[in-house]
Amino acid sequence: MEEKTMQEQAFELLKERKYPELREMLAKMEPADIALLLEEADIEDVPRFYRILPKELAADTFAEMEPDMQELLIKAFSDNELGEVLEEMFLDDTVDMIEEMPAAIVKRILRVADPQKREVINNLLNYPKDSAGSIMTIEYVDLKKSMTVAEAFDRIRKTAVDKETIYTCYVTDPGRHLLGVVTAKDLMISSPDQIIGDIMDEDVIYVYTHDDKEDVANQIDKYGFLAMPVVDNEKRLVGIVTVDDAIDVLQEEIDEDFALMAAVTPSEESYLKTSVFKHARNRLIWLLILMLSATFTGMIITRYEEAMSALLVSFLPMLMDTGGNCGAQSSAMIIRALAVDEIGFKDFFKAVFKELRIALLVGFTLALVNSLRIFIMYELVYKDTDLYKGMNLWLVCLVVGVTLMGAVLLAKLLGCILPMLAKKIGLDPAIMASPLITTIVDACTVLLYFNIAIWVLRI
Amino acid sequence: MEEKTMQEQAFELLKERKYPELREMLAKMEPADIALLLEEADIEDVPRFYRILPKELAADTFAEMEPDMQELLIKAFSDNELGEVLEEMFLDDTVDMIEEMPAAIVKRILRVADPQKREVINNLLNYPKDSAGSIMTIEYVDLKKSMTVAEAFDRIRKTAVDKETIYTCYVTDPGRHLLGVVTAKDLMISSPDQIIGDIMDEDVIYVYTHDDKEDVANQIDKYGFLAMPVVDNEKRLVGIVTVDDAIDVLQEEIDEDFALMAAVTPSEESYLKTSVFKHARNRLIWLLILMLSATFTGMIITRYEEAMSALLVSFLPMLMDTGGNCGAQSSAMIIRALAVDEIGFKDFFKAVFKELRIALLVGFTLALVNSLRIFIMYELVYKDTDLYKGMNLWLVCLVVGVTLMGAVLLAKLLGCILPMLAKKIGLDPAIMASPLITTIVDACTVLLYFNIAIWVLRI
Repeated sequence: MEEKTMQEQAFELLKERKYPELREMLAKMEPADIALLLEEADIEDVPRFYRILPKELAADTFAEMEPDMQELLIKAFSDNELGEVLEEMFLDDTVDMIEEMPAAIVKRILRVADPQKREVINNLLNYPKDSAGSIMTIEYVDLKKSMTVAEAFDRIRKTAVDKETIYTCYVTDPGRHLLGVVTAKDLMISSPDQIIGDIMDEDVIYVYTHDDKEDVANQIDKYGFLAMPVVDNEKRLVGIVTVDDAIDVLQEEIDEDFALMAAVTPSEESYLKTSVFKHARNRLIWLLILMLSATFTGMIITRYEEAMSALLVSFLPMLMDTGGNCGAQSSAMIIRALAVDEIGFKDFFKAVFKELRIALLVGFTLALVNSLRIFIMYELVYKDTDLYKGMNLWLVCLVVGVTLMGAVLLAKLLGCILPMLAKKIGLDPAIMASPLITTIVDACTVLLYFNIAIWVLRI
Repeated sequence: MEEKTMQEQAFELLKERKYPELREMLAKMEPADIALLLEEADIEDVPRFYRILPKELAADTFAEMEPDMQELLIKAFSDNELGEVLEEMFLDDTVDMIEEMPAAIVKRILRVADPQKREVINNLLNYPKDSAGSIMTIEYVDLKKSMTVAEAFDRIRKTAVDKETIYTCYVTDPGRHLLGVVTAKDLMISSPDQIIGDIMDEDVIYVYTHDDKEDVANQIDKYGFLAMPVVDNEKRLVGIVTVDDAIDVLQEEIDEDFALMAAVTPSEESYLKTSVFKHARNRLIWLLILMLSATFTGMIITRYEEAMSALLVSFLPMLMDTGGNCGAQSSAMIIRALAVDEIGFKDFFKAVFKELRIALLVGFTLALVNSLRIFIMYELVYKDTDLYKGMNLWLVCLVVGVTLMGAVLLAKLLGCILPMLAKKIGLDPAIMASPLITTIVDACTVLLYFNIAIWVLRI
């Protein structure tokens, strides 16, 4: 409610050209909120809005914007304005932005950036897409072992403005090798004449530039770090990954898992901003594959024309749905446990054995309840119809029950095995989720069902 | 690999009773890693292992452990030992732990804690389960408006050890009302004689104790904060929520969504630690509900005995699977977008209209491809069988195609509408995921299919 009024107020002030009032109002807001405000403004108003912001706030707001808004603004900027924004922005935010821009704009950004910054940006752009290097920033505080605490404070004070975090400082030797780490808290509770080498923690946890960014994010979470140092192959410190970027990586990864598990090609754009065509394209690929795969199940069914009674067919949806649901349960649990490093391939047999026992327990209970249901329904409701035409109801229960147990067992085992194998061979386990497993389990269930039915009921 | 060897080394040192070496080795490790190490140790060795740790490291490690290990240790502790751990632990970690313990242990903890701490713990325990109050800590740095920067540093230095974060400091009046916020960075780049009131940021973003903890976590992520101040109804500062706790809340919430979306009752325990019975119980409830619901689809089928040809039945798995997959796609996209606040109920019609257009596009393409598939298969493969008994293949394609479009349309609309309605009435949108939607769509698809078939094919 409050935000709504703020937005309306801002739009009104802009309309009435009350720029000083607008500037004052915006100056009190958080960059993330101003970015949201600009998203709602008329496109032609955005540059005017943006130019009202104080310089530093403008750069912070720019870093918070969606790529399409950034592109729009860059196109409206003079080279001077663009240079100022690049000057104020943190390097990792700049690199994030560049990665989303079309080639012409990337060229312009690199041309406008000062030569030293350009070189650093080019280096950062060269790290592989999902590596720690691609999300790190080089704007960290480095200290020398021989400094006193007072000298360290001095150095921090002088360079703080340009650093993404000053709360974790890294101690390096002249060859830039990482020797230790000192937090701002350590510095504050030490006396000014203590030597950094004496108070630093030498057991530093670090990652390599080529490490997977998700692993790095998971480690930052695990250790509760504000930043993680990144070293190259010679263990020279080259950058840090900060906790806010780690959260972004974790969130992105989950977006991806949600999409993959629901048979959607992942996309980085937000739901509302993605066009209908792109949504349809992202979803069609998997739907087509799965639809054509389901054809096999259909082909299997046509082979059992002689067993095709309404009674037997009527159990098919229940059998297929339950198989699908069991597969969804196991695969979701396993995929999530793999994602947060709770289990790994080393737990393969432990997990399979667990799912096996769960499947037996669940399958048996379901078969029992379902038999009860069949008995009650057919003894009471359908008693006088010719639906089961003198078939032995006990045997029908047996056929459905055994098929049900088979479907549950297969679904739970596939739901456990496939994601773990996928991880092992370097695929995203989330691909092996419910839709794919359902399709496989369906075909097997139909095959099992009609064969048992023909054999037991002697159709 | 490296970690494995570390573990083996540690276990060996313990076995050979080389305690000083073990202590030295453990002292270099991170608390989170020691906690993992203890998870792998024999249960009877855990207290011995734990007692070797230096006092502060021991408390940090204790806070990182799983509840079952904490319980085991508390049972092995003397009251003195328990008191020491409680003394060292941060209050929010203590409260987290207490919430997982059985009543007898909670009593003992409260008895052993010093009276002042006991009162604070009891207050924190009284906040509702999912509120900001339940995850906040009261260990923040508060400053006065009239202090100088030098005085502020003095105060931080004196109280830093017991504070969970010293990097964001809060300025309060004598009535504890929140006046402003000052970061350690602000303090470091200011001259020592500046007044806090002059450098503090008065536009503080805060939350209330009763706010939902997920909303608070999402805000910390959005603004990139290290901590978020929490106030009571009179806007008095009562605590802070730190970024590490925010990450935990986000991760927990995602665990919950993964479980609910796969029709599993969420549980806080890890996959491997949950017993087979508990796994089975968490999964059975939904499976039973969904299985019995699928009965309706079966009952509908029995009504169409006269239309039950192998050809028509053979399309059922494909129709039901595709409906299910489409529902999974839309619901997953919407549930995730709702979870990260990308869309809200205000976007209801926008989202429904989007899904409607996507459904038309996707449904039409699928129907087209499927018709092609039917033609190719039945003209080439099944040409000389009597499977379609002189039925007009064009009309069969029409029946299947129209049903397919209907199923896609219904699935995509339900996948969009149900999660949004759930959110609106205060339920978790993740309940309205694929399994439930599949069950509803199945019944409607069967009904639609046979009715169109009877009408068009004049069976």
